[in-house]
Amino acid sequence: MPITTAIVLPNLAYLGAASNYLEEIYEVLGPLALFDGFTPEEHSILCDYMECYAADAGVTIFSEGEQGDFMMLVLTGSVNVIKHDKDSKEKVVSEVGPGGFLGEMSLVDGQARFASCVATVPTDVAILHRRDLAGMVSGQPQVGVKVLLLLLQLVTRRLRDATTRMLPTIESNWI
Amino acid sequence: MPITTAIVLPNLAYLGAASNYLEEIYEVLGPLALFDGFTPEEHSILCDYMECYAADAGVTIFSEGEQGDFMMLVLTGSVNVIKHDKDSKEKVVSEVGPGGFLGEMSLVDGQARFASCVATVPTDVAILHRRDLAGMVSGQPQVGVKVLLLLLQLVTRRLRDATTRMLPTIESNWI
Repeated sequence: MPITTAIVLPNLAYLGAASNYLEEIYEVLGPLALFDGFTPEEHSILCDYMECYAADAGVTIFSEGEQGDFMMLVLTGSVNVIKHDKDSKEKVVSEVGPGGFLGEMSLVDGQARFASCVATVPTDVAILHRRDLAGMVSGQPQVGVKVLLLLLQLVTRRLRDATTRMLPTIESNWI
Repeated sequence: MPITTAIVLPNLAYLGAASNYLEEIYEVLGPLALFDGFTPEEHSILCDYMECYAADAGVTIFSEGEQGDFMMLVLTGSVNVIKHDKDSKEKVVSEVGPGGFLGEMSLVDGQARFASCVATVPTDVAILHRRDLAGMVSGQPQVGVKVLLLLLQLVTRRLRDATTRMLPTIESNWI
């Protein structure tokens, strides 16, 4: 069943159901290779299970270490991904613009956020909550399967990047 | 439709359909948290889409850099995961025993194998090919969804490990 209760994100302004922003979201998702194979109807069903929020510049969307159970797609604006080092100094590890996904690890495993996400300019995001992913998989399995495949490809791509970047560390330990 | 043509893995001996080894596979998968929520019937359907192979000690199951489109579950024995460093010297990066999964990145993205897998003792594996995963998702969607979720959790766990291990590298670049 599509979303009946919006999740509360205290730092963000609730914009309403993603189905009110079908075209804007399609414009962002459409060019992504990951999104290949979604028909306009399936796109519309996916949007039935997402919600849109706006973050002002400087707003922390979620914080490193806190529990999380949703991911987001950046629609407009820009988000800095920030880690704290051993001395609690902040470091921007990446910058994510429209079409970028954030927070998918916690969506899948429900564990703590690996990094913080901070909007650097006014930013709109579409959010997919774990509860609504489960609802989509059971209520609209043909779309649910496509979304699971999209997530699987996304996480696998991140894993390939991470293991490739990790290589020098492994190698330096070999000596 | 369940498997009709076995894939050819030249270094391995074909043992037959995984459905001939239902109990052995359940014994290995049953204790895994990832496998939680599979009924015996769903387990049996999953096995309809997998095949079993045996590798002698010393046999390379697949090699770093080659194209791949299957993953495997180790049933018995042990497999070394080996990377080559810049000077082409081999290094064992992990050792995987019964219940361990290998090769899931290439199953998902069809890209080159990140590392080589070599059996250190006589080893039996159950193999899931990308073609058969697709067949399961369309032919047995309720099991297909569970397998996609299992894979998503597996890849996410690996990503969390990799990003955590990668942290010192990132931090050393900050200075």
